[in-house]
Amino acid sequence: MKRPIRFGLIGHRFMGKAHSQALHDVSFFFPTPYEPVRAVICGLEADLPEAAARYGWARHTKDWREVVSDPEVDVVVIASPGNTHCEIALAAAQAGKHVICEKPLARTAEEAERMWRAAERAGVKHLVNFNYRRLPAVQLARDLIAAGKLGQVYYFRGTYWQDWALDPAFPFVWRMDKSIAGDGSMADKGSHLVDLALFLVGDIAEVAAAKTIFVRERALASGEPRPVTTDDAAAFVVRFRNGALGLFGTSRMSAGHKNALGFEVNGSLGSLLFDLERLNELQVYFAGDEPDTNGFRTVMVTESAHRYVAHWWPPGHVLGWEHAFIHQYWEFLEALREDRQPSPNFYDGYRVQLVLDAVALADQQKTWIAVPEV
Amino acid sequence: MKRPIRFGLIGHRFMGKAHSQALHDVSFFFPTPYEPVRAVICGLEADLPEAAARYGWARHTKDWREVVSDPEVDVVVIASPGNTHCEIALAAAQAGKHVICEKPLARTAEEAERMWRAAERAGVKHLVNFNYRRLPAVQLARDLIAAGKLGQVYYFRGTYWQDWALDPAFPFVWRMDKSIAGDGSMADKGSHLVDLALFLVGDIAEVAAAKTIFVRERALASGEPRPVTTDDAAAFVVRFRNGALGLFGTSRMSAGHKNALGFEVNGSLGSLLFDLERLNELQVYFAGDEPDTNGFRTVMVTESAHRYVAHWWPPGHVLGWEHAFIHQYWEFLEALREDRQPSPNFYDGYRVQLVLDAVALADQQKTWIAVPEV
Amino acid sequence: MKRPIRFGLIGHRFMGKAHSQALHDVSFFFPTPYEPVRAVICGLEADLPEAAARYGWARHTKDWREVVSDPEVDVVVIASPGNTHCEIALAAAQAGKHVICEKPLARTAEEAERMWRAAERAGVKHLVNFNYRRLPAVQLARDLIAAGKLGQVYYFRGTYWQDWALDPAFPFVWRMDKSIAGDGSMADKGSHLVDLALFLVGDIAEVAAAKTIFVRERALASGEPRPVTTDDAAAFVVRFRNGALGLFGTSRMSAGHKNALGFEVNGSLGSLLFDLERLNELQVYFAGDEPDTNGFRTVMVTESAHRYVAHWWPPGHVLGWEHAFIHQYWEFLEALREDRQPSPNFYDGYRVQLVLDAVALADQQKTWIAVPEV
Amino acid sequence: MKRPIRFGLIGHRFMGKAHSQALHDVSFFFPTPYEPVRAVICGLEADLPEAAARYGWARHTKDWREVVSDPEVDVVVIASPGNTHCEIALAAAQAGKHVICEKPLARTAEEAERMWRAAERAGVKHLVNFNYRRLPAVQLARDLIAAGKLGQVYYFRGTYWQDWALDPAFPFVWRMDKSIAGDGSMADKGSHLVDLALFLVGDIAEVAAAKTIFVRERALASGEPRPVTTDDAAAFVVRFRNGALGLFGTSRMSAGHKNALGFEVNGSLGSLLFDLERLNELQVYFAGDEPDTNGFRTVMVTESAHRYVAHWWPPGHVLGWEHAFIHQYWEFLEALREDRQPSPNFYDGYRVQLVLDAVALADQQKTWIAVPEV
Repeated sequence: MKRPIRFGLIGHRFMGKAHSQALHDVSFFFPTPYEPVRAVICGLEADLPEAAARYGWARHTKDWREVVSDPEVDVVVIASPGNTHCEIALAAAQAGKHVICEKPLARTAEEAERMWRAAERAGVKHLVNFNYRRLPAVQLARDLIAAGKLGQVYYFRGTYWQDWALDPAFPFVWRMDKSIAGDGSMADKGSHLVDLALFLVGDIAEVAAAKTIFVRERALASGEPRPVTTDDAAAFVVRFRNGALGLFGTSRMSAGHKNALGFEVNGSLGSLLFDLERLNELQVYFAGDEPDTNGFRTVMVTESAHRYVAHWWPPGHVLGWEHAFIHQYWEFLEALREDRQPSPNFYDGYRVQLVLDAVALADQQKTWIAVPEV
Repeated sequence: MKRPIRFGLIGHRFMGKAHSQALHDVSFFFPTPYEPVRAVICGLEADLPEAAARYGWARHTKDWREVVSDPEVDVVVIASPGNTHCEIALAAAQAGKHVICEKPLARTAEEAERMWRAAERAGVKHLVNFNYRRLPAVQLARDLIAAGKLGQVYYFRGTYWQDWALDPAFPFVWRMDKSIAGDGSMADKGSHLVDLALFLVGDIAEVAAAKTIFVRERALASGEPRPVTTDDAAAFVVRFRNGALGLFGTSRMSAGHKNALGFEVNGSLGSLLFDLERLNELQVYFAGDEPDTNGFRTVMVTESAHRYVAHWWPPGHVLGWEHAFIHQYWEFLEALREDRQPSPNFYDGYRVQLVLDAVALADQQKTWIAVPEV
Repeated sequence: MKRPIRFGLIGHRFMGKAHSQALHDVSFFFPTPYEPVRAVICGLEADLPEAAARYGWARHTKDWREVVSDPEVDVVVIASPGNTHCEIALAAAQAGKHVICEKPLARTAEEAERMWRAAERAGVKHLVNFNYRRLPAVQLARDLIAAGKLGQVYYFRGTYWQDWALDPAFPFVWRMDKSIAGDGSMADKGSHLVDLALFLVGDIAEVAAAKTIFVRERALASGEPRPVTTDDAAAFVVRFRNGALGLFGTSRMSAGHKNALGFEVNGSLGSLLFDLERLNELQVYFAGDEPDTNGFRTVMVTESAHRYVAHWWPPGHVLGWEHAFIHQYWEFLEALREDRQPSPNFYDGYRVQLVLDAVALADQQKTWIAVPEV
Repeated sequence: MKRPIRFGLIGHRFMGKAHSQALHDVSFFFPTPYEPVRAVICGLEADLPEAAARYGWARHTKDWREVVSDPEVDVVVIASPGNTHCEIALAAAQAGKHVICEKPLARTAEEAERMWRAAERAGVKHLVNFNYRRLPAVQLARDLIAAGKLGQVYYFRGTYWQDWALDPAFPFVWRMDKSIAGDGSMADKGSHLVDLALFLVGDIAEVAAAKTIFVRERALASGEPRPVTTDDAAAFVVRFRNGALGLFGTSRMSAGHKNALGFEVNGSLGSLLFDLERLNELQVYFAGDEPDTNGFRTVMVTESAHRYVAHWWPPGHVLGWEHAFIHQYWEFLEALREDRQPSPNFYDGYRVQLVLDAVALADQQKTWIAVPEV
């Protein structure tokens, strides 16, 4: 018999749907002794009951405190805007619930550190959903680097372009409000890049940065104008502690790019290239290949030898964006089963936040800023 | 309240899993008045109970006749090898069940015609699972052609390469046995290409063809040698009734290609290009674009304007292979709701089979063979 | 001191210019004991004197017989329409001149055979300008196959798309007149594909084919309508003598393709892919690569280890289309220096023509046609 | 009759060869009233006479002062290492010669400014060979931006990767010596990127930067170790005066990249993407295209409508790296003919150098550095 594990989810829009599907599908595809139960979903909009029904939640509520204090809930999933993360996570940890939190973990490193320490103190499991780590191609990248196949890493390039805000007539949304989102393209997209950089290359020592807002005022749906207070785009350079250079760019106004997270890693023995819009592929170059047939290999990361893939389909039967969420939940359940902290967890989220804070400060002060060692 | 609709599935391997997940997910993502129920699954292998539990089937049986005659079953899904399709479909139709059948519909056009006529006579719904029609990019291709954006179609190229059988030591499997599979790469892969050609361009008038077997004997898992009696690869040319030319290739021994279905359509006003390994993209060329910035557009078919996509994720959040199955089931449920035949149905499967039979005959007789008009 | 070798060129349009530049540049880039001299150019149009001056020809004439009989000419280059090749080549050989001839060598295999035998009888050097053989990437393809790196060849796919004739208002030109050009897309483009197939895979045993004309009448520049008598497009399949399958397509009305010659070779150990619009690259797949990082390698064929490249620029400094002509002339001069027949020569051109004739016959008779062994 | 214009070239290695070929070919392909004469070539190595003969130079000398003072020379071309540029250019200008100089113009902005002022004072024509401006695809990029097709430019990304120095055993060469080269990957590659940014987007206001040396000591051919004093790689961010952000990266140790200059420009109405290894293509995106078929267009920049192309070959017959040199010389001759300064000239070279100096200073001082307005 499978052991039920009961989830309470806060957020019922895009992220709420994505977490719901992962809970719906994880045990269909992956072996686990647990049976995830969709106990209660929380949201503020009028269509919450409909979402609850569609996504298979037993109950729904408008008050997140009900979720956190519900004795029928084992795990609290925070998929609401950034300004809510810290308070909910603290309450959940204090109530002895495991906590899964969307990225970026918080609006500031100070908030993130508090969340991490609270979860540790409470002895609960904690996970931050840097979902792109859980793509088979990204896992392969990590495995190749860890196995030394790239040698010493010299250079990391990470860029994340979208264009949903390109039109100046696109309305004001919460991601454009600093008090809610903490940051703009840097929080939404930069946090993914920084996490991948830490995951693949290691600690960042210092940063220099420029952030900017191209459209300084947008209208609410009601027509009322509001000042945009988060960055539309950013550009920053870093030095990693191991001596590598890093180059990063983000934008939500990059025409033609829908969800274009890309990274490249160059090492002394080879290189890697990844593009989220072709997420089943990894470009791999080995300097040691024969000189006349040397070149970037377009690896289809859909073989059963690749992490997660054996649980899906035969080679070449590609996965999509949402699969990384399912993998993340499986990793969470595996960590529960083995009674260890999952990865990436709040400590990872905190480390990302330290870099994001350094980027913000570097932009303001127009100088290099050191990232604190923790 | 949703109305339950009860499925019986025959087959519990790759295709069985794929159909199960579609039934598991379709109402999570797509609006439908029906609630698909996984009533009974049928298979012959020892791990059937485990598959039934994993994939959420209430019961399991080794006897497909139980499925077909089960009063608790509304729809029979045939996902077993090709030699079983005809008999099961006939029995299911006679029992008044709706029938969903994997492709190719049958081993011969004669079988396929019988299946089609039986289903029609019985007044049940019937669907053949040419799943690739249900990819958003393929729907877009069809819509553009139907809207006249490509003008008169001149040329269709369709190729489907895999390499799972490349190694001569790869064991003998049922797809290599003509009495079971009907055909080799032509049945497995060629049937998809022919269906897409009929879907996108229209009727095929005549064919010339070459099929071949590169490895004539393979060993069973037991080590016992068996003659391979289905084609490893095929090449054929066609004339469409509308005057267009067609060029087709299939292989299961094409090194480096995992699931590489590709097609191109050239018309008097533009062209289209598709590659299944990058299934979220469609390359589109319009001859009428400005001369200095004319070129194939890499369209990310992930906008809410594209068919099916609004039910998934925001732009650039890509779909995978299995999503087409979910779309197919939604189309089936929509057809039920509107009390009409779904598409593609057994008539489409029959028409594909007429072309496959003509290809086989053209290969044997070394001459052009006309495809019967039906 | 370099030894002068004097050329007479017949044709002063596109091909005339291309041959002229090769003669202008070959000894600049490649080491040779010869100094090519542009002695005399022949053409029929009013701008001949201007072309002669621009392209560095000492003299010009409207009468090709003057070129052939000129004692100051060592090599005759035939770059005029197809209906002139045979007569000029025969006369040149008879006059003891070496002969370089544009492809396809002739309008029929009968003509081609006469040309080949005449040149052999006269003891002159003869070369047919299948220039694409002389691209570094194509040479690499050949070398890899010859070295057995692909194992046994199973499948060859060759396609050549252009769209210069897409617009029905595009005027009637000589390539649309069967009596001059011999054939349409098959002669112009198909001949390249067939040559590459013979070069890379080996002899073709038999063919089945479909050719078609989409726009049956076009207007001369004068406005006068003329029937188009050569194919706009063709599709054919072949069996090679070694058991491999072949799939071929050509069109001059393929929207969006400017000069898209592509081929793929699949063997028991690997695969190759080439695209003329990216002619510095070769995609190479080795089945024996490690399973987790296996994939098509995008080889930049710009290393000094690659044929011809050391005479040009450093790695990554790409070559263009015309460079193959320069390589072809260097190969010709090297053959002269070593007193051997260059490659490809009239025998190769004749063998291509046998296949083109078989394709034409197969199309007419709607059956497979065997290619004569020679 | 064409008017001879006599060139003296300093440098006979890679760049010497490239300039020689351009002089050899420019009037073959492009209409000009001038006949470039290769009068004298200067170099220091033992194979100078051989190079002179191969590349068609009438005379050769080891002393650049002979070239500069030669009354038979109209134009001095400086293609020697960076530490020689300033002195030679000053002398040439003083002697009343027109001057063409390789990039980067100098080692410092101070040197560059002196060169520019000296040439202006002397009233001679001056050109700095930022050759990539002269690729048809780059011209198209510029034209589209100038015509407002991209709207307001928001973001420029420029990266230039090579890997010739990847192997630590690769010997010490002059580009690794700061006193000769001025800088490393920044001078060699960064100067191209900065020039393109200025050309396409406009003035740069300020920069933050990181440069690094991965292999700090290399051996001369003799085996003697030498410290590397120029950067192996760099990363920098800029703010343009018009408010756009810029992201730049360079490396000579980026495994797998041979000559990978790439740039992207994002504007309010569209985007552009370019890759030097596929230099005949430009990716163009227009936000205003129909929503369902919107995507990056792969424009083959080989149409006669594209700058320079009409002088070459038909559509799809691609150009190579060296062609940009030929275009540059044609532009120079056209400027001579019209008695105006060519573009880019020493003023452009000086402006690039101001940015390179700012990058160096920003790296040293670990702060943002303003680029002086000139």
